[in-house]
Amino acid sequence: MEKYKPCCKEEQDFLREYNPSQFSPIAVTVDAVIFGIEKDNVDNYRKLDEQSIKVLLVKRDDYPYKDCYSLPGGFVLEGETLEDSLRRTLKSKTGLTNVYSEQLYTFGEVDRDPRMRVISCAYISLLDTQKAKIKNAIWMNLDCIKELRMAFDHGNIIEEAIKRLRGKINYTDIVFHMMPEEFTISELQQVYEKILGEKLLAPAFRRTISDKLEDTGKMTGNAGHRPSRLFRYKK
Amino acid sequence: MEKYKPCCKEEQDFLREYNPSQFSPIAVTVDAVIFGIEKDNVDNYRKLDEQSIKVLLVKRDDYPYKDCYSLPGGFVLEGETLEDSLRRTLKSKTGLTNVYSEQLYTFGEVDRDPRMRVISCAYISLLDTQKAKIKNAIWMNLDCIKELRMAFDHGNIIEEAIKRLRGKINYTDIVFHMMPEEFTISELQQVYEKILGEKLLAPAFRRTISDKLEDTGKMTGNAGHRPSRLFRYKK
Repeated sequence: MEKYKPCCKEEQDFLREYNPSQFSPIAVTVDAVIFGIEKDNVDNYRKLDEQSIKVLLVKRDDYPYKDCYSLPGGFVLEGETLEDSLRRTLKSKTGLTNVYSEQLYTFGEVDRDPRMRVISCAYISLLDTQKAKIKNAIWMNLDCIKELRMAFDHGNIIEEAIKRLRGKINYTDIVFHMMPEEFTISELQQVYEKILGEKLLAPAFRRTISDKLEDTGKMTGNAGHRPSRLFRYKK
Repeated sequence: MEKYKPCCKEEQDFLREYNPSQFSPIAVTVDAVIFGIEKDNVDNYRKLDEQSIKVLLVKRDDYPYKDCYSLPGGFVLEGETLEDSLRRTLKSKTGLTNVYSEQLYTFGEVDRDPRMRVISCAYISLLDTQKAKIKNAIWMNLDCIKELRMAFDHGNIIEEAIKRLRGKINYTDIVFHMMPEEFTISELQQVYEKILGEKLLAPAFRRTISDKLEDTGKMTGNAGHRPSRLFRYKK
């Protein structure tokens, strides 16, 4: 933004005498719900590998909520935009850079942090786990979140992020941020099913998704089941 | 949320000694982009009244941006959630209560307010202007926003709100928050056209929208043009 210019002497005085400490202290944080997909190796070699939706968590080693799991994030510092903060905290807490992110929602419950009033601007991020180099963070199976001791309202933030993802996958191409470069239609269908929480009919799925896909001309080489055609996302 | 219980003496000490003033002062505001529809009376009595999309603005009577137009909004106070703040500021600045609102986006540019660091959580609201009782605020034609002296980054926030509205009207029923109780399909089509910024084909529009409408059994009584069937939103 352009630097603001006071219009007159009165306004100059007003701004000089403005006391930012008149309000009770408040802090703003950013938190990221980072989703990825990982293959669980299934015992039965004739079956398609099961895939799970994962969310990236960090174990807290300080009070409050020590030893609980939390979303990677941190305080917005002076001179930083929200996106600057997100980049800095993701890099320092997970090692990640260049992650696709969009704002999810801002959480402002009064007592959500026992330290002080903290309002958190949450982001939703999707990435290809095969490419992402992670440090100090853990890919947690989404199904396990309810069993974990989660810090703050982060369990609730994750739930909201899943709702958003569920609402968006049918009318946006957001899901492809999570997919590897090349994948079979069955793998893609399984990801949709995991996110939507319901089984889809293969012919209908193929029909609706085909416009977004490009044939790589390659086939899977897995032993055990028939080779399948590999596709990539058509941008 | 449940009240947080420290797990041990160390954590109690940590929280008691936590200094909320260690960060440089930051404030959080809420701002609402409130959309409505109003009929412009057209001279030609044989024509359908033109409708315009309006946004509700407040003229600032204090520094900074004195005499500029701004979105209704204000600072989030101690003990208030974001939604509490929104309700309070909308009531005091516009007289409105019970407005349909959803979060739009949180704006965190570093220099967006000359008083201090202010992060604003913006909401998008839609209402039926025939029912809304407004005080101290002005319904401004959307086309005029660019000509006005707008406070802060509020012009930009309005642009983002229009993009969101444009993105959502085809896959949600959000638009009906703006419509009067009873309306003709032509009036509804005109609202869609104003929001999307393009002409729509009447038969295609009727086909896609008909599932959402219920025939009231009534007809318009306007002189000058043929009576039209009145519909209401089928919830």
